[in-house]
Amino acid sequence: MPGDGMQLVALGGMGEVRPGDDLGALIAAAADAAAIGLTDADVVVVTQKVVSKAEGRVVDLATVQPREQAGAWAARWGRDPRQVELVLSESAEVLRWADGGLIISRTRHGFVCANAGVDLSNTGPGAGERATLLPLDPDESARGIRDRLGDLTGARPAVIVSDSFGRPWRDGITDVALGAAGIDVLADLRGTADADGRELHATVVAVADELASAAELAAGKSSGRPVVVIRGYPFAVPAGEDPGARPLVMARERDLFP
Amino acid sequence: MPGDGMQLVALGGMGEVRPGDDLGALIAAAADAAAIGLTDADVVVVTQKVVSKAEGRVVDLATVQPREQAGAWAARWGRDPRQVELVLSESAEVLRWADGGLIISRTRHGFVCANAGVDLSNTGPGAGERATLLPLDPDESARGIRDRLGDLTGARPAVIVSDSFGRPWRDGITDVALGAAGIDVLADLRGTADADGRELHATVVAVADELASAAELAAGKSSGRPVVVIRGYPFAVPAGEDPGARPLVMARERDLFP
Repeated sequence: MPGDGMQLVALGGMGEVRPGDDLGALIAAAADAAAIGLTDADVVVVTQKVVSKAEGRVVDLATVQPREQAGAWAARWGRDPRQVELVLSESAEVLRWADGGLIISRTRHGFVCANAGVDLSNTGPGAGERATLLPLDPDESARGIRDRLGDLTGARPAVIVSDSFGRPWRDGITDVALGAAGIDVLADLRGTADADGRELHATVVAVADELASAAELAAGKSSGRPVVVIRGYPFAVPAGEDPGARPLVMARERDLFP
Repeated sequence: MPGDGMQLVALGGMGEVRPGDDLGALIAAAADAAAIGLTDADVVVVTQKVVSKAEGRVVDLATVQPREQAGAWAARWGRDPRQVELVLSESAEVLRWADGGLIISRTRHGFVCANAGVDLSNTGPGAGERATLLPLDPDESARGIRDRLGDLTGARPAVIVSDSFGRPWRDGITDVALGAAGIDVLADLRGTADADGRELHATVVAVADELASAAELAAGKSSGRPVVVIRGYPFAVPAGEDPGARPLVMARERDLFP
């Protein structure tokens, strides 16, 4: 298709990621194999699942001792009490105990999501006996990948660590940014003029979430393509200290739906 | 960038859209001017604003008589009582009267958003004295554009009508699909196997919302590029009757945050 535009290419062939793996090196090699020379102007979106695996955020369910509350909830809804225990231990606060057994909670990072990001799918061979947890500090994860890509390739693209979240009022999940490095995750268009020369109001765009969503489309699910390179999106690099993806987490006092 | 991937190109040069304009013809001409031959495999994302303008969903604020409640709320927060009146008349139900004057409501379509989609920005020359309202039936809008593109170009791409919505718990707006034609807006991956051969659970992806978000990035705000063509995303065409974007609106009885 002609014209300046955005392009997204999914990278695969990285194999099963294991604890201790050098994810930056795996991404650099996958980009190389795809004949993609990464640049500072690219955005590299990496799914949380492989970040968690590389960081060893994988739990053998046989080692989990469910508390009484977890056992009761699991029994009521036919869920695995060990998974429920992990959800509770990953949560700072439960917002809803929902019909069907779903738990909506606020994680220690401040993310509001289902089951605190604890996931039994795509956890590797023998899956079902292991669960992945969210990275302890997804911004640190993104910074680590960005630094490692810089060392290996000389390019420092923006890096986003993504995950799939549900949301109120709308069906279906969309991918959002859990962590980020080298990109302003919000684009504040307030004060810029619109096409009529009128000042725009309340137009702060969650560009890192939109980039994560775009990457989800390019990757597809379950395709063994956990990394997507986005080219042609003119993002801003943080001027001072990089706040990562924290600006996307709404301050609780501003939240109308606590 | 080499490799099979997704590509997004924004179309501009359509000028100011006015009530009665033939939006399908304007899009076909813009694609032609950009040397883009539309195909059945493309997704055309059109912002709500130009759809509303073409459909005459533009209100002269001088004609609006605010009810007492609208006047009181406007006075309290320094807002235009006529805009508040429009928000209330576009709302089926107000969910939150928020500090700062923001009204979160459910529109008659079932969308939960700020100010019922009533917008004073980008309404054309002399803006500030006019407001745009959401299309009465965004799915019908999308179908109309798709049919017209089919007549003019022979191609029947998927069409999405997009708008920017805020959301709880996360800062920043993201674009979502208000209306759709020729595309399954949810991709239900339940029952497909993940990379480990394990069945995926609860993986219904709101692909039309993700496509709208991706298009927002490619268009940029206030750039006079209200249409984006997305190529390389393998969407599904509805097998039977096209439900449009309605499957994205969560049934109230399933909503945990009413």
